[in-house]
Amino acid sequence: MTSPLLEQLIEAFRVLPGVGQKTAQRMAYHVLERERDGGRRLADALAESIERIGHCARCRDFSETETCATCASASRDVQQLCAVESPADRLVIEQATGYRGLYFVLQGRLSPLDGIGPRELGLEQLATRLATGEVQELIIATNPTVEGEATAHYLAQLARNHGVRPSRLAHGVPLGGELEYVDRGTLSHAFGSRSEMP
Amino acid sequence: MTSPLLEQLIEAFRVLPGVGQKTAQRMAYHVLERERDGGRRLADALAESIERIGHCARCRDFSETETCATCASASRDVQQLCAVESPADRLVIEQATGYRGLYFVLQGRLSPLDGIGPRELGLEQLATRLATGEVQELIIATNPTVEGEATAHYLAQLARNHGVRPSRLAHGVPLGGELEYVDRGTLSHAFGSRSEMP
Repeated sequence: MTSPLLEQLIEAFRVLPGVGQKTAQRMAYHVLERERDGGRRLADALAESIERIGHCARCRDFSETETCATCASASRDVQQLCAVESPADRLVIEQATGYRGLYFVLQGRLSPLDGIGPRELGLEQLATRLATGEVQELIIATNPTVEGEATAHYLAQLARNHGVRPSRLAHGVPLGGELEYVDRGTLSHAFGSRSEMP
Repeated sequence: MTSPLLEQLIEAFRVLPGVGQKTAQRMAYHVLERERDGGRRLADALAESIERIGHCARCRDFSETETCATCASASRDVQQLCAVESPADRLVIEQATGYRGLYFVLQGRLSPLDGIGPRELGLEQLATRLATGEVQELIIATNPTVEGEATAHYLAQLARNHGVRPSRLAHGVPLGGELEYVDRGTLSHAFGSRSEMP
């Protein structure tokens, strides 16, 4: 390598998800050869975001303000609360559905072996919120994984304890998929949960 | 999106090669959730590299010093000069071969339609260097594309004009490949250039 700084830059790029040595090299060369302005903007945005983006005090999603725009909005339905594992999940639900309620971002899932319990997921905060009586329905949108399901059961119990109706996203065959390629677990579940056609 | 800053960060990540909206989102979330320290290091490395990395005055490769370490080294063979299109090409040759000569990085290839001529590739500088009589062999390692071949022919002529022997990387069937999957052009070339077995 001709430049120790360049070596350091390549190493630094490897912090990004899915970026190995080769891709990091490509990124460093690309920025230096063709995108110095863009690279400067990226460096600034990165430094400023890390400095200023924290978590919303109400929903725990990323926010640079005390309360995020969604939680502060007067046009959202406060009777519905949707619990998701991560900010990315919140984003896809917001983009794909017409949901107008509020969110609660767990920032993880129950995983006792990794030391992630109710406290780490902010469930005390969620319980306090459910206790106010404002929320009617807790939509549980954790991932359909073993840990996500365990978290879902825990949340459902928490909701019931506060007289809130828990609901869960439907499981089944994805739209536009072919049965042949759907995994057995999903197919078996979809078969068992079949509904009468109108 | 809950945070305009986050939106800006995602947009900034898209400057990287092969990074679209989805990957940029994943990178931004990953850095904010799990890698704030690494992200800070990346921002610093990026800003500093863009600020300080320029081109070596001798070989045109990236360098933060006037002359890069390779060109400044006393242990390299000054009689061999290898011309490559990009710093990445220089790097793979350095890593894959035992080459101990020097390099000349064109930072592109002849492409009149894009306004890239001999001047943009620093060929005057290369000519001056070949004229000193120090270089015995110019190893032309431009890519085996149409433009790379055109550049190779131009460089070979330049070398001959200064009494320097031009050479070109061998073309043929890649090691470990299967003939069935080699493209026709390569196979036809390899067949025509077959050599007698010892």
